[in-house]
Amino acid sequence: MSFRAPVSDYQFLFEHVVGLADVTATDRFAEADKDVIDAILTEAGRMCEEVMYPVQRNGDLDGAVLENGVVRTSKGFAEAYGQVAEGGWISTSADPEYGGMGLPHTITTAVNEMMSAACLSLQLNPLMTQGQIEALEHHASDEIKAVYLPKLITGEWSGTMNLTEPQAGSDVGALSSKAEPNGDGSFAVTGQKIFISWGDNDFTDNVCHLVLARLPDGVPGTKGISLFIVPRNIPDENGEPGVANSLKVVSLEHKLGLHGSPTAVMQFDGATGWLIGEPHDGMRAMFTMMNNARLGVGCQGIGAAEGAYQHALGYALERKQGRTPVEDGSGTIVDHADVRRMLATMKVEIFAARAIAMSCAVAIDMGTATGDGEWKARAAFLTPIAKAFGTDTGIAVSEMGVQVHGGMGFIEETGAAQYARDVRVTAIYEGTNGIQSMDLVARKLMDGGEAAYRLLDEIEAHAEDARTKMPELAEPVWEATETLRETTEWLVTQGDLNDRFAGSVPFLKGFARVLGAHFHLKAAMGEGENGARSKLARFYITRMLPEHVGLLAHAVRGADDLYAISVDDLSA
Amino acid sequence: MSFRAPVSDYQFLFEHVVGLADVTATDRFAEADKDVIDAILTEAGRMCEEVMYPVQRNGDLDGAVLENGVVRTSKGFAEAYGQVAEGGWISTSADPEYGGMGLPHTITTAVNEMMSAACLSLQLNPLMTQGQIEALEHHASDEIKAVYLPKLITGEWSGTMNLTEPQAGSDVGALSSKAEPNGDGSFAVTGQKIFISWGDNDFTDNVCHLVLARLPDGVPGTKGISLFIVPRNIPDENGEPGVANSLKVVSLEHKLGLHGSPTAVMQFDGATGWLIGEPHDGMRAMFTMMNNARLGVGCQGIGAAEGAYQHALGYALERKQGRTPVEDGSGTIVDHADVRRMLATMKVEIFAARAIAMSCAVAIDMGTATGDGEWKARAAFLTPIAKAFGTDTGIAVSEMGVQVHGGMGFIEETGAAQYARDVRVTAIYEGTNGIQSMDLVARKLMDGGEAAYRLLDEIEAHAEDARTKMPELAEPVWEATETLRETTEWLVTQGDLNDRFAGSVPFLKGFARVLGAHFHLKAAMGEGENGARSKLARFYITRMLPEHVGLLAHAVRGADDLYAISVDDLSA
Repeated sequence: MSFRAPVSDYQFLFEHVVGLADVTATDRFAEADKDVIDAILTEAGRMCEEVMYPVQRNGDLDGAVLENGVVRTSKGFAEAYGQVAEGGWISTSADPEYGGMGLPHTITTAVNEMMSAACLSLQLNPLMTQGQIEALEHHASDEIKAVYLPKLITGEWSGTMNLTEPQAGSDVGALSSKAEPNGDGSFAVTGQKIFISWGDNDFTDNVCHLVLARLPDGVPGTKGISLFIVPRNIPDENGEPGVANSLKVVSLEHKLGLHGSPTAVMQFDGATGWLIGEPHDGMRAMFTMMNNARLGVGCQGIGAAEGAYQHALGYALERKQGRTPVEDGSGTIVDHADVRRMLATMKVEIFAARAIAMSCAVAIDMGTATGDGEWKARAAFLTPIAKAFGTDTGIAVSEMGVQVHGGMGFIEETGAAQYARDVRVTAIYEGTNGIQSMDLVARKLMDGGEAAYRLLDEIEAHAEDARTKMPELAEPVWEATETLRETTEWLVTQGDLNDRFAGSVPFLKGFARVLGAHFHLKAAMGEGENGARSKLARFYITRMLPEHVGLLAHAVRGADDLYAISVDDLSA
Repeated sequence: MSFRAPVSDYQFLFEHVVGLADVTATDRFAEADKDVIDAILTEAGRMCEEVMYPVQRNGDLDGAVLENGVVRTSKGFAEAYGQVAEGGWISTSADPEYGGMGLPHTITTAVNEMMSAACLSLQLNPLMTQGQIEALEHHASDEIKAVYLPKLITGEWSGTMNLTEPQAGSDVGALSSKAEPNGDGSFAVTGQKIFISWGDNDFTDNVCHLVLARLPDGVPGTKGISLFIVPRNIPDENGEPGVANSLKVVSLEHKLGLHGSPTAVMQFDGATGWLIGEPHDGMRAMFTMMNNARLGVGCQGIGAAEGAYQHALGYALERKQGRTPVEDGSGTIVDHADVRRMLATMKVEIFAARAIAMSCAVAIDMGTATGDGEWKARAAFLTPIAKAFGTDTGIAVSEMGVQVHGGMGFIEETGAAQYARDVRVTAIYEGTNGIQSMDLVARKLMDGGEAAYRLLDEIEAHAEDARTKMPELAEPVWEATETLRETTEWLVTQGDLNDRFAGSVPFLKGFARVLGAHFHLKAAMGEGENGARSKLARFYITRMLPEHVGLLAHAVRGADDLYAISVDDLSA
């Protein structure tokens, strides 16, 4: 088995589907011309294939462990991480003033996805660091920036996010960690945090924790939370890692997957930290980084799907079983209709999820480059869809990959199951997919549906353009978009949020189905008729898109029938 | 966490939904009156709760291992198995002449499902033995029956099925194991078999392998295969386990789940075996037992779903997070609309899958009791649906159970992930769900759709009866059945089987959706309005049933568009 980075898929997507040209036409990103982007993608792809993919199985078989209070990482991870950092792959979008490449976030997102496909558990480390870099760029003081950003950008130091506490998960406002002023501008941070991805490692010189905690005068709930940077080793006057801080890894979790990524319970005992942003304004700073982190997690799902797909396709092209049911078949199970259906489904779903994620990344870049509110609203609207659909696709595709393997799929040595186990958490962390769907139907429709309708208008306009050339594909896309518009209108007019929440997950899935069809249609139009992309678009639009009917019917049922099913009814 | 056997659900289902009264009205099963059945269910439920469920986690944490050629099973399994056997739970349907209870297969199926919910990896052992008992009852000589059946029925000995070889999985006709006559009526069986569930253990006095192999004059393919019984220890003149046979466990697989069930590579080196049934007629004997085994595996999926549901509900009723969004809520996450949606979905899916499985079991019993061809055709038609939908439901529900747990779902200590890992193989073994769907659209429609249409007629007739009392539920069921009829008609008329196979999985799922709605409607009608079952029926019919639209649209696309996507297109 080997891994081939999907570089050409990205090149096609950027050129024909998500309009990266709009981004590179801005002053902000003018340096990122096609040659630069092609070189970056090619080089990143090579790194993923040659550096990260070879350690992927190690991450599962030889997971991270805590030995005498020290995290020992999987065999080969330290060396692989070193090459990731050295190549600059942690900081492709970071501020050039501190050593970053300043490329569009779209490029970083694509590189992150390829890295996720190659080795999800290791990729999670730079993803966390990227979020921290972004939070510091936006909210830290110049002093903090000067000390931390260069080290994070080179990857000499890594970053973590410390939000969750045992009683405060989705409800982050319930946290009880405290921060007391030390009188010298620093704070003493105390509390226990759980589920801290890459809470420590044995290959970076320092690990910097962004910690949410409450100042003495912080009110209860989210409005009383502040953000602190709490390094494992306190930087000395030269900015080098100095004395150990008062914090430790208490334990690592025993998880379903991602064994290569140490998930820590962290204990802070009056650890020295510095405020990031304004007091009590920690949630805003977290949201800055969380939005991009959500897109990043969506791409973890897509990456895992890509890895699982290649793994399954490789198996299907080798495995002989039964007579081939088609003339001029290859003689392997790929000739069987149901196996081909599974592989085609995997491929079209990956395309749809990737296009949605990349269009979200383009909107982020356009918002950054132009400051335009419509682009920002587009990015905000697409983020929960990209996160939830990307990770749902990761789970569904890797499950299908197991099925393609037949009995061998259940045997761990095959490696198919690792994709399914590793990716499972992506639908949970960084806001569960249920939370994403609530965000979509509540906060992201607070504009009265404006951002949604603008997107639907674009989809319909494109379908109308495509109608002459590809009527069989364009017409169903247009029809489905009309149904989606009606569904959206219904949601917008529900005053009781529970009526929206009762169908929010099917709504998000239905929205993704229609978006996926739109992007497949764009791909078919971009390629011209009868090429591979047109055939895959036809598969998606005729076989997958019709699912929107059931999903959107579910979305408009409201809360009454649901809550009529009482706890007693559920327990009976 | 604890487990409560769903006894009352079964009682309701038998009385109001699947018509067990038809079975108990036959001479064959006249002794199984309501009191007997209630006592059996109650006693089996208690055994599942008190004997099997307590060892369920052990099966995962302390999986079976091979030590010096001997299988050592999980802590507590030997004792639990002893109580299962002693209670007679292996042989509730077996022939009373040899010590069985002679109860309807429906009762055995219900007991098996409860056992699966309590401890899937241990339950797989008696399930294999049951299949062997059935095969011997139908095909073995009186001498063989006299030696083996009493021991298998008491559970003193256990049974296995040895079909698969490395190059012969779904294509069993490709097997290369050989059997040579020894001249004394016995045969020397030689070959390697893989994926042998419970290939050995340390708690039964003997392990009897049913092995498919080819006699010297056996033609290639399935028509040259014969069936042999090959015991680990050759019975002596008193029928007690004697000298060791020439066979061994080579290794155990390292699997995604079901760690408590040893999955063996078996080596037969001229092992002594005896022919079961006629020479070259092994496939027919295997199919006898496989049909019921397929239903049994479907019920493994449903059992795992039940266990996962109870686990998730228990968590949701304990876990506090966020303000309760409803008045008079319980204050835990069960109050949140999306959590309640997930739990309601799990519950209605389990009901649908269980009703389908039980209606299949009733048809099997009616076929046995009356010899009626229509009942036999009904059983044959429902078997692949019960297997595939039951196991798909097991996977989907246990995945949802992980999601309900949020971050804790990814942590193995919670136990939520075990259900998802354990049940995964049920969609693969005993014929993958893809194979089930091919069976449904090819072999099971070879009657020109007669069995299918008869079932659809019944569904529509019931919906018409229900229309006056419950129009909002009856009407969508009737409409969906019409769509399903049209889809079935389309499939029946496709001469090229690949046109059927290209949509066979969505067709099976769509058929199950409609069947599920029918049974939910029956439950609502059986209960009367406004009870829990009516509310759940409304949830299913308004939110889940609409999925049939997308599924059945997919089912009629044919093979051309699918095969137009070439291997090169998939590999691009």
